[in-house]
Amino acid sequence: MGGAIAKALREKVCVKQECLFACDKDSETLNAASQAGLIGKRFDADNAGEMLTLCDIVFLCLNPSSILRFLEKWKDSFKSGCLITDIAGTKESIASAAEKICEYRKKDNIDFIPGHPMAGAEKSGFNNSSLCNFNLKNYILTPIAHNKKENLDFLQELIYKMGFSRITEVTPKEHDRKIAFTSQLCHVIAAALIDCESDTEITRFGGGSFEDLTRIAMLNAPMWTELFLENSGALLNRIDQFEKSLDDLKALIKSDKAQELEKRLTLVRERRIAMSDGGGKL
Amino acid sequence: MGGAIAKALREKVCVKQECLFACDKDSETLNAASQAGLIGKRFDADNAGEMLTLCDIVFLCLNPSSILRFLEKWKDSFKSGCLITDIAGTKESIASAAEKICEYRKKDNIDFIPGHPMAGAEKSGFNNSSLCNFNLKNYILTPIAHNKKENLDFLQELIYKMGFSRITEVTPKEHDRKIAFTSQLCHVIAAALIDCESDTEITRFGGGSFEDLTRIAMLNAPMWTELFLENSGALLNRIDQFEKSLDDLKALIKSDKAQELEKRLTLVRERRIAMSDGGGKL
Repeated sequence: MGGAIAKALREKVCVKQECLFACDKDSETLNAASQAGLIGKRFDADNAGEMLTLCDIVFLCLNPSSILRFLEKWKDSFKSGCLITDIAGTKESIASAAEKICEYRKKDNIDFIPGHPMAGAEKSGFNNSSLCNFNLKNYILTPIAHNKKENLDFLQELIYKMGFSRITEVTPKEHDRKIAFTSQLCHVIAAALIDCESDTEITRFGGGSFEDLTRIAMLNAPMWTELFLENSGALLNRIDQFEKSLDDLKALIKSDKAQELEKRLTLVRERRIAMSDGGGKL
Repeated sequence: MGGAIAKALREKVCVKQECLFACDKDSETLNAASQAGLIGKRFDADNAGEMLTLCDIVFLCLNPSSILRFLEKWKDSFKSGCLITDIAGTKESIASAAEKICEYRKKDNIDFIPGHPMAGAEKSGFNNSSLCNFNLKNYILTPIAHNKKENLDFLQELIYKMGFSRITEVTPKEHDRKIAFTSQLCHVIAAALIDCESDTEITRFGGGSFEDLTRIAMLNAPMWTELFLENSGALLNRIDQFEKSLDDLKALIKSDKAQELEKRLTLVRERRIAMSDGGGKL
């Protein structure tokens, strides 16, 4: 995602190469970003502080727990007046860390607006960063009390310029509750589908549905383990709700209730179409 | 699907317009197919028999129960030497009906090879038939004892010419067991996902996973009701297996077992990749 954002900043926002710096623990990622002509300066993870003293805007493209560790380690290195944002898939812990650093560096006018670009790809790493297409994608912001209006306006404009088509502002709690459904539950379901079938030749019987439902099972296991556990309360609620609906459908199938089943599926169809039409782009 | 097959026969197999006939209960579908220059003759549902006396090959593009009714009604109308096939999503009942008509019209050399093109679209109707792209798609055949080798060879050649890339031959029972997983279970899951969330604005929080998992929830309710109930034994087994895996993952999340959860997700990732690589195209 870091690579995809760098590309969008260069190609869509026309940020000059010499103004874009990157820091990564993986030197091959930095090599690739340099060779692609994306970045002006590169920094090892140990030298993140050196980079931070130079940056007016910082995108933290890390897992939630790594963001918390990063902020703790480098909290004194951020440049005065710096605007920080992040891309983590859960927001409650990030929002409280954002409050903390804004308070700690208050006199330096540091601001941190937590965010979540809804444009991940199932394959991670810089070489797959072109798979992250931002066009027509959603971006969620979970502003905190400290955030300055001019920073929020600036970040929103930047996000639209990067290609995203819709920004939604919600509380961190609401974000985590919604994302537990649209993202984490979907990944748990995809994983369970693959978990219960060992035949790797099963794809001979695939017609699109199975492929669509399980593509995200090619997940980054450490990252998703963290996201599931970080947001386990909301996620477990969503799994329970889903299991309840699944059990209802199973009962209708088991008892051969054609009329009721068709009625329920018709409502599902109508609701899904309303989600496409009313809820906006899908 | 009938429209998509007609298009493939015209465009890929280069069947002449005057050699392609269509029968449908919906006159607008027939109008559209005529206007598209696809068909040479058109027949109302009541005149199916008149069409059948002219056809060397018949594709029955109907729900399973409608196929059984159609065969019963028109069993005497099929032309001598005719090759029949179908596209229904469950195959046990169709295969036994195929045996029956082959036996009944044995002296006339009628042959019926049950089939299932794995290339449906979530939207049905002639106007959406271009959504059915056959390239790189699977086709399942469930031949019966009666089928003649030359007819099977001919049908396979025709299927490849229409654009399908892989044909798998299995017993009707095996077809129904596999399809209960790759197709019906996936549709039940998509329906349950939509069933448990009433907020049509939820798509503001979508990043691709939710959209991919629920696109098929825009299902043809009467058709899928029939498919679910027709294959309920195999489908209920598959739902149980899926629920078992889902419960395992839920337990790992609930008990905060990061290491075990990550290990299980890693196995899922590897298996899904093996399904793409070893199992063939996805």
